[in-house]
Formats: sequence, structure tokens, C-alpha cells
Amino acid sequence: MRSPVVKSCCVLFLILFLSRHYSVSATKEILNPKKPCKRFILYYHDILFGGNDVANATSAVTANATKLGNTDFGKLVVFDDPMTKDQHLLSHPVARAQGFYFYDMKTTYNAWFAYTLVFNSSDYKGTLNIMGADMMREKTRDLSIVGGTGDFFMTRGIVTFQTDTQEGTKYFRLKMDIKLYECY
Amino acid sequence: MRSPVVKSCCVLFLILFLSRHYSVSATKEILNPKKPCKRFILYYHDILFGGNDVANATSAVTANATKLGNTDFGKLVVFDDPMTKDQHLLSHPVARAQGFYFYDMKTTYNAWFAYTLVFNSSDYKGTLNIMGADMMREKTRDLSIVGGTGDFFMTRGIVTFQTDTQEGTKYFRLKMDIKLYECY
Amino acid sequence: MRSPVVKSCCVLFLILFLSRHYSVSATKEILNPKKPCKRFILYYHDILFGGNDVANATSAVTANATKLGNTDFGKLVVFDDPMTKDQHLLSHPVARAQGFYFYDMKTTYNAWFAYTLVFNSSDYKGTLNIMGADMMREKTRDLSIVGGTGDFFMTRGIVTFQTDTQEGTKYFRLKMDIKLYECY
Repeated sequence: MRSPVVKSCCVLFLILFLSRHYSVSATKEILNPKKPCKRFILYYHDILFGGNDVANATSAVTANATKLGNTDFGKLVVFDDPMTKDQHLLSHPVARAQGFYFYDMKTTYNAWFAYTLVFNSSDYKGTLNIMGADMMREKTRDLSIVGGTGDFFMTRGIVTFQTDTQEGTKYFRLKMDIKLYECY
Repeated sequence: MRSPVVKSCCVLFLILFLSRHYSVSATKEILNPKKPCKRFILYYHDILFGGNDVANATSAVTANATKLGNTDFGKLVVFDDPMTKDQHLLSHPVARAQGFYFYDMKTTYNAWFAYTLVFNSSDYKGTLNIMGADMMREKTRDLSIVGGTGDFFMTRGIVTFQTDTQEGTKYFRLKMDIKLYECY
Repeated sequence: MRSPVVKSCCVLFLILFLSRHYSVSATKEILNPKKPCKRFILYYHDILFGGNDVANATSAVTANATKLGNTDFGKLVVFDDPMTKDQHLLSHPVARAQGFYFYDMKTTYNAWFAYTLVFNSSDYKGTLNIMGADMMREKTRDLSIVGGTGDFFMTRGIVTFQTDTQEGTKYFRLKMDIKLYECY
């Protein structure tokens, strides 16, 4: 009674059963650093308030540096900075970066950021929430995208910072390479 | 030897196999903005310290506003605020909101929040950690619930803010619509 | 024609089908508080800057306490603290903790933390981003690991704080029990 049909049915069964396990575990391995589900690059422009440039400034020191070292340890800056698609400060902003950074090393300049990218354009409406260390002496550094809203509902990801230019203490520009790994 | 039993067994097999794939992919699409796995509304009461009201105050300015504009840019407030189920300030708090906000726009009032909801009641024990932009001029705005502990172990979600009342600079109340999309 | 082989094949089929559902739902229930995918314990050492100890200090007050109560409400401290595998301050640090905490209760000492663990050793390269309430009067308290980068790509988890020692206002040490529940 062990017909070839029954036999091959059982073999097929076994193959599918094994492939099932493979496929289930795949749902947990979907996050590949090289394969974000969405990616785009934006530039962050920070113009620090100097006292008489209210019209141009986009950030301001709200707590002064401490005397721990001489690289601005503890200086806390609040910002509402424009984000553009290219490197030009005067390009139309596609988002605002709202949040703060502070310096936190006594031997070199090193910063820590927490902020929200607020999108309100024809491309995207919604926000991305970001936090992490900005180890300024490294060529690139990764921060965490810890949540999103609107078009970025419940997303997570990584944003890679790269210093694009630094003009004294007045202006700096960061290239932000935004990679989302959980898209809904 | 191709009995009806074997045939129907194979058909059933195929159906189940296909349904399996459907079910696996469903685990990735489980997040629907309209279908949180848990939802509740709480009210946040903030009474800013004025200098001689220690007993009532629940928050205090720890870094003063900068001179960038005249909408309190950079003013940083630390809070330990009661959360209630209804709009009454004196209702029994079901949680505390501990964290900070600061104002970050030079043309209008706009804020940024990071805080923890600390629950310690018969309903819930544990915390929810939240961050995001509070664009005060919008009717509603969404912030990210980026993690949780205790009864909210590893949760994520969205909290929607709505200004419920604003009494000068002394008191304001926010309606917080808490929606969890990852429950364990 | 209902041979025993066909029968047992169908029974096996049913068992596997049920186990499949179990296994698929397991991908959503994979987060068990008692079964982190990675766990390690580190000690956090905080030496608050006193004015003339630049060489030793690892943190500094950047915004002073307010007058709301007398338990330092609003005092904001920025830190770049060493993390060691054992309790000894002078052990080789395996990571840096970069971020801030502030005190936020008017009746007792209670804090709120947001920081990044920066690893750059032979064991790990990458970061963990953490935020949450440090209810200092509790024996243990849980904060959220909201994201990670490098070797901790996209991770999430819980870190449990325990006060290990407190020497006046100058030095304190926290035991941090780091439990990751999403590993990639």
C-alpha cells in the first residue's frame, strides 16, 4: 500500500516543513544594514545665535560651557535648523530639525544629539525621532532613529552623520544619511 | 493508486502551505495606525514654579530663555507632573510624567519633549518612554513611545498630544492619547 | 483505500500544521523578559566636577538646581563616564557612557537619564542608546534601550539600574544590567 504518490507526498511534506522553519526565521533576519527599506540624504545647517543676528540664527546656547576642560563641556544648544536636499543653506528646506545637542568631552569636541525631523512637504508629512552620540573626531558616526509618526509611522533606523563643513563656531553643516530598516 | 484521500490530502496541503505564507507575512504587517494593541487617554497637568508656590508647583525652569526671538527659545523646564484619567487636576494621579521640555522656535511657541510615564497603581506597574516634537500650533501632534518596562515591557507606540487648556504661563493641561502598537 | 500510511500522514500533517501556528506566533512572543538574546553587566562611575579636579572629574553641572524643594530639582549634569566590567573605578573601561541626567523630584532625590554607551574595544564596536527614569529610592529600576548601532545594529532592550555605592555628592557607581531582546 506504500504507493509512490504517498511517498512523494511525504517527501514534499518534509521539504515544505523545513522551508517553513527557514521562512519563519527569515522574518527575524529581515534587517540587513546594507538593505534599508527607505533611504535618503539630507543636509543639516546650524547657525549659532551670536547676539545680534536673530534673523539668520537657527540655534542658541541655553546653558553655558562648564570649566571642565576647555572644549565646551556641558554647553547646551537648542536648535530649529533647516534640512535641505543639497548642501546649499538657502535651498528650500524639506524638513526642520528641532532638538538639542551638548558637548560632553573634556579633551576634544564631542557632542550628543536628540532631535526630531519634522517633515511637512508634498513628499512627506510626519516626523522621525533621533538620538545618539556624535563622536565628532570620527569620519562618520551612527545615531539611532528610535521612532516615527505620520508617513514614517512606527519606523526605526540609523542616521549616519558626516561633517560637511565647519566655519568657526558660527556655522556648521552635517550630511545626514537616513536609513530606515522598519517600514510600515 | 491515486485515491481520493491522497488527492484531497495534497489539496489541503497546498491550501495550508499558501495560508502559511500569508500568516508569516502578516506578522510584519501587524502595525495598523487604526488598530493599536492597547489604548488609553490620560491628562497631563503642568504647574510651573513661580518662586513661592513650592507646595503646588510640579515643574521649574532650569535654563532660561535665550534672546533669540521672544517666544522663549531655549527655555528648559524639568517636570514631575501628575497624570489623571479625567481633566481634573485634583483627581487621583494614575501615573507621573517625569522629564523635560524646552521651547525651540523663534517666531512662535513650539516645544520638544522627552519624558517617562511612571505607573505604580493597581492597573499598571512600569514605565513608558516618550520623545518628540510638540508643534503647539497644530491641533494634534504625534510623539514616539520608544520603549517600555514592567507591564509595558518592550512596547512601542505613538502618543497624540492635544492642548486641553492653557492658563497664562502658570498652568497648562495636555490630553495624551496613548496608543501602543507593539505589545508583549 | 484508507491505508494506515495515508492516515498517519494526515495525522502528522495536522500536528505540523498546529506546530506551525505555534511557531509563527512565537515570532511575536519571542520577547521573554527572562530570556534576553544578549546580556552583560557593566559598572558606571560618575565623578562630579568640583572646580579644581579637572583631571579626575567625568561629569559637570551645566544647569543649577532650582528652588523647587531642596533635593536638587532641575540640576542638570552632563557626563562622559567610564564603564567597567567590575566595580573598580580604575579598571580598564570597556565603554564610555556619554549623556546627561537631571534631578526631577521636589521631595526626594530622583533622576532621569538619556545617554549613549559607546563601545570601542576588541569585544564590541558600536553604541547603545538609552533613556528612562531613575527612581533612585527603588532597589532596581528599568530604563529602555531604544536603539543601537555597529555590533548592536538596531537592537532594543532594557537596562536595570542598581545603586552600587554613593559617596556624598562627589562619586557614585551604578550597576547596569544590560539585557537585549532584539538582536540582529
